[in-house]
Amino acid sequence: MEFTAQQIAGVLNGTIEGNPDAKISKLSKIEQGEPGSISFLANPLYTQYIYNTDATLVIVGKDLELTAPVKATLIRVDNPGGAFAKLLEMYNQVKLNKSGISKHAYISENATVGNNIYAGEFAVVSDGAKIGNNVKIYPQVFIGENVVIGDNTTLFAGVKIYSDCVVGKDCIIHSGTVIGSDGFRFDPAAEIKKIPQIGNVVIGDDVELGANCAIDRATLGSTILHNGVKFDNLVHIAHNVEVGENCYFAACVVVAGSTKIGPGCMFSGQVGVVGHLTMAGGTIVTAQSGISKSIPQTGTVQMGSPAFDANKYRKAFIHFRNLDSIVQRISVLEKAGK
Amino acid sequence: MEFTAQQIAGVLNGTIEGNPDAKISKLSKIEQGEPGSISFLANPLYTQYIYNTDATLVIVGKDLELTAPVKATLIRVDNPGGAFAKLLEMYNQVKLNKSGISKHAYISENATVGNNIYAGEFAVVSDGAKIGNNVKIYPQVFIGENVVIGDNTTLFAGVKIYSDCVVGKDCIIHSGTVIGSDGFRFDPAAEIKKIPQIGNVVIGDDVELGANCAIDRATLGSTILHNGVKFDNLVHIAHNVEVGENCYFAACVVVAGSTKIGPGCMFSGQVGVVGHLTMAGGTIVTAQSGISKSIPQTGTVQMGSPAFDANKYRKAFIHFRNLDSIVQRISVLEKAGK
Amino acid sequence: MEFTAQQIAGVLNGTIEGNPDAKISKLSKIEQGEPGSISFLANPLYTQYIYNTDATLVIVGKDLELTAPVKATLIRVDNPGGAFAKLLEMYNQVKLNKSGISKHAYISENATVGNNIYAGEFAVVSDGAKIGNNVKIYPQVFIGENVVIGDNTTLFAGVKIYSDCVVGKDCIIHSGTVIGSDGFRFDPAAEIKKIPQIGNVVIGDDVELGANCAIDRATLGSTILHNGVKFDNLVHIAHNVEVGENCYFAACVVVAGSTKIGPGCMFSGQVGVVGHLTMAGGTIVTAQSGISKSIPQTGTVQMGSPAFDANKYRKAFIHFRNLDSIVQRISVLEKAGK
Repeated sequence: MEFTAQQIAGVLNGTIEGNPDAKISKLSKIEQGEPGSISFLANPLYTQYIYNTDATLVIVGKDLELTAPVKATLIRVDNPGGAFAKLLEMYNQVKLNKSGISKHAYISENATVGNNIYAGEFAVVSDGAKIGNNVKIYPQVFIGENVVIGDNTTLFAGVKIYSDCVVGKDCIIHSGTVIGSDGFRFDPAAEIKKIPQIGNVVIGDDVELGANCAIDRATLGSTILHNGVKFDNLVHIAHNVEVGENCYFAACVVVAGSTKIGPGCMFSGQVGVVGHLTMAGGTIVTAQSGISKSIPQTGTVQMGSPAFDANKYRKAFIHFRNLDSIVQRISVLEKAGK
Repeated sequence: MEFTAQQIAGVLNGTIEGNPDAKISKLSKIEQGEPGSISFLANPLYTQYIYNTDATLVIVGKDLELTAPVKATLIRVDNPGGAFAKLLEMYNQVKLNKSGISKHAYISENATVGNNIYAGEFAVVSDGAKIGNNVKIYPQVFIGENVVIGDNTTLFAGVKIYSDCVVGKDCIIHSGTVIGSDGFRFDPAAEIKKIPQIGNVVIGDDVELGANCAIDRATLGSTILHNGVKFDNLVHIAHNVEVGENCYFAACVVVAGSTKIGPGCMFSGQVGVVGHLTMAGGTIVTAQSGISKSIPQTGTVQMGSPAFDANKYRKAFIHFRNLDSIVQRISVLEKAGK
Repeated sequence: MEFTAQQIAGVLNGTIEGNPDAKISKLSKIEQGEPGSISFLANPLYTQYIYNTDATLVIVGKDLELTAPVKATLIRVDNPGGAFAKLLEMYNQVKLNKSGISKHAYISENATVGNNIYAGEFAVVSDGAKIGNNVKIYPQVFIGENVVIGDNTTLFAGVKIYSDCVVGKDCIIHSGTVIGSDGFRFDPAAEIKKIPQIGNVVIGDDVELGANCAIDRATLGSTILHNGVKFDNLVHIAHNVEVGENCYFAACVVVAGSTKIGPGCMFSGQVGVVGHLTMAGGTIVTAQSGISKSIPQTGTVQMGSPAFDANKYRKAFIHFRNLDSIVQRISVLEKAGK
């Protein structure tokens, strides 16, 4: 696909400085601009690059003042970052706009399938599944019995969804992620050691899950990810957990069974949360921390393993680093006291 | 499937209080009971819910004394929790009772396959594999050359088992788990940097592995998971590790190469164990801890990174939290001494 | 496959002591030697086993002096460990020497495929992909549009590679690993919350990635793993990260977005690195540590979370373990001062 400066200025409602017929076919960073690419300048720290970038087009702010000539054709807009994001979004929509059911996919005749779906090679849609409109099912995806997938959701190659789970609208699930595996519940003393896990997973709308995550089904009832939840890769969510709206979890976060997390929490990478807790909305947890108690107050910042108030943790950690000199101060006092 | 109170009381050897013809088709928690569902009451803290649950049937203890009328039909048994678990188990057995080989599965003509197996779409069973009776192979599972799978084992969608590995009887392996990938052994100084990994993985009977685990093959010999081992999701086991009978590992536990772990150990989430150690049976390790030394004594509780005795760790951690005031006490002493 | 002592001595340029017609068909450790196997003795601590191993052949050093008779036929070489590694390598090459395209694989007619490739059942090679010579694509692998795979690379069962990514020559990617999933970038305040991820992943030559890793594509530009990088299982690499040549990452390492790691770094298991940092080459990071700041100096050893100099950390940690007695010393001083 090739576009002219004029076409792009039209889409972005911008004005052209330079050659309106300049053509581009790809996007680049301004410091790595190549001929035939379009870039943008939003951060003043990168202004230096405008004078010698090889990008053919650059999106800049309306008020940018140039102090030397530039090679590139400029498109001036109110918000260069936002305009570039709009281009990225358009590019992505065209690129990911797949449809049609491969003759190598297996769709059960007892499944219900919406309009305009894509189903790639060796994908499986089982009996009783209900697939919404415009859903994209990449190759080698497995959709179990009675699973429900909402409109416009994308399941990338190899996603596995166990029976009876529900995924909402406008979701994106990345490759290798498993939804609905059994919760980890055993009763080593009982005759039947494994506690059967017959609940499901319910995922709201506008949720994105990274690659190779594992979201366990509930023992009874549902493990729930509410609308707008975003997970990075390799996140583990145990049985009967509930994650509130618009929570963001970085990679390798682990939440143990039955914990309830309020809306708008932000967890950095490798955070762990023990089971059966309640965490208030808006909690921020720093990387590698371990939450071992319920957090009743909204909007706190937690740090450490086990975690406590992040400011107090940082202060204690400074002393920890200095423990050798602290102990020497005690030795000096002891000698002085003799 | 629909069942009457009478049918269920028969199975559970219980007595009915209410309508013997009341029908249910699903299971629920007592606090979330819906018409047409069966629930149970075992924990006295939940007794309040018996009076207004919408569940049609509730399993209760023989000795439960009611202080007000109830809507639900009751089934009285000796052990309500155990009885409900039995129902869950029966429900699960019916639900997961799949059999037959899909015409879209690939079973090598040089593989040996037992009676009454299930093999789903796009599953692969390679040359020389031996599959026991009643084995369930879900869609998109890969079973490599010469792999042996014992009777009654279930491999959920997308499990990958490399050549020459052995899985015992009555095992459950969840989606995305990889068994038999190469151990991580390199000799950066040598001509051939990669040390070939030609051993295998041997998994005992009654083992359950969660989703997206990775169990590496041995360099020579076998990486071994003994009978009754249970792993949650995303667990990593390196080459030549041996995990003793009935060990329970929560999510994201990591064990490095050649470590031997005794029977009956319990590891919480995100625990790490370095390589070439020996851990005595019955060791308990708290979440996010790091085992850096062999543990010679059975039944200890380990905490911290690097880990030591958990009681001592907790005491030290309390002081850590108070380091700011501890340092102030030193400052006071220093001023007093001047 | 069966080989005689004579054949093996020929390959290894060794001399035989015993029966040149002795036959072996497998490899074993000397302490677990079985009839029909070949083993080796390199470590003097294992010399005791030479006298009663059941291995049929044992590779030993030219200068090994025996103090008692041995059952096994010996093959004497300069470097027994190296000679055994050579045998392992040969064994592996024969075992993994697969070729041919399964009639159950799906190779797009718009893909380019080199000579002598292997493509297993239910593998997918999408439009525009370019597959080099001698590439091994195991069953259920997904190769997205326009992906490039270099000569002699092996992709084990179920690897998923998103569109536009590049994998070099002589690489090994283990099962379940995902390459090119979206970076985790959102702008919760913006109209379009998801920042489109239109870059790719570029992997150099001679790279090995373990099972169930996740390597995210760049927002713009490339996430880069340079030549010789080796990852264990379950490693997470975020968007726009760059990992220098010959870095070794143990299991469950997590690197956040846009961080640049110099060549020759060694990360132990469960290490985390925050985003937008620069780490000098040759940095060593101990297990479970968290790198929170750029490391400007080459060759340091980092420990702790947040990490600092490992020697200082170890010293501080010794004091941490003793905090209870340290606080008691303060109490004694306080009482003495009254």
